[in-house]
Amino acid sequence: VAVALVHHPVRNRQGEVVTTSVTNLDVHDFARICRTYGAAPFYLATPIEAQRDMVRSIVSRWEAGPDHPRREALAGIAVVASLPDAVADLAARVGARPDVIVTGANLRDGVSTFAAVRASLADGSRHAALVVFGTGWGLAREVTDAADARLEAIDAGTGFNHLPVRAALAIVLDRLLGPGLY
Amino acid sequence: VAVALVHHPVRNRQGEVVTTSVTNLDVHDFARICRTYGAAPFYLATPIEAQRDMVRSIVSRWEAGPDHPRREALAGIAVVASLPDAVADLAARVGARPDVIVTGANLRDGVSTFAAVRASLADGSRHAALVVFGTGWGLAREVTDAADARLEAIDAGTGFNHLPVRAALAIVLDRLLGPGLY
Repeated sequence: VAVALVHHPVRNRQGEVVTTSVTNLDVHDFARICRTYGAAPFYLATPIEAQRDMVRSIVSRWEAGPDHPRREALAGIAVVASLPDAVADLAARVGARPDVIVTGANLRDGVSTFAAVRASLADGSRHAALVVFGTGWGLAREVTDAADARLEAIDAGTGFNHLPVRAALAIVLDRLLGPGLY
Repeated sequence: VAVALVHHPVRNRQGEVVTTSVTNLDVHDFARICRTYGAAPFYLATPIEAQRDMVRSIVSRWEAGPDHPRREALAGIAVVASLPDAVADLAARVGARPDVIVTGANLRDGVSTFAAVRASLADGSRHAALVVFGTGWGLAREVTDAADARLEAIDAGTGFNHLPVRAALAIVLDRLLGPGLY
């Protein structure tokens, strides 16, 4: 299972399709959470070349530094320009096109349950899977419509669905790949 | 169920007991995650008065602003000087001393499982509970030793246990209070 964090095409609060800025924090948090659950690579996708360079420089700085958990976590990052580039890279690594599984706080119709996706990952019925997260106010409709599967939204029953994307990643990986013994 | 994020006494990487700085990011992420799961109040505990003032000013700024999910989330914050002050405040709100349940990446001995704590929260056997998170490299030993319960560490089986505290909060609340239907 691999993970992608997409900065374009995503929506802003008004529903317009935009490109968001990469935040240093998301880079570190995504890397650490993915490493915890053994999800690799973690694809950071942005069309802005200067921001791809920035992420590469963060990774290089830690690579050159002393041994530290962050260094180990950041080793799992792959910087790409787009989600299709991430899919192509993962396909080349595993020898077959991965299933693209999108996430989003507003996904309700035609969704797959956490239980179903967890089972499909465990039983080997998917050759490889790329679980995709959008920044801003979520992935653009063109991305969610084209996906192989749409994961049901996290719904804790309080009516509030504005989790930070970092928190959504942690919960989704725990539900899909965690021990599940509770 | 209430949550506390403690900035003292916590350990640094060398195991020394220190006071960490409050980060704007933890304030927002904790507030949004707690609101998602209906955990309230979210106690932010720091002995540094200037940092308590900073958090209060963040909350005030959003309170005075337009309607926004962050405003709703930040309304659940209670700023306190220490964990004992959080316990006392919660006791006054609910009319009885809450059970203090500590978390930590290194808790192994004498721990309660997620399943056991989840069940105890659901069956009403605890009058109220305060789930406590430490910044830095975790809560000081004096805090974990004095707790009513120590929650088992999150262990995804990869040997890497350096989650951001924001991610640990998301996973813990999902395991304890989430739908559990997966």
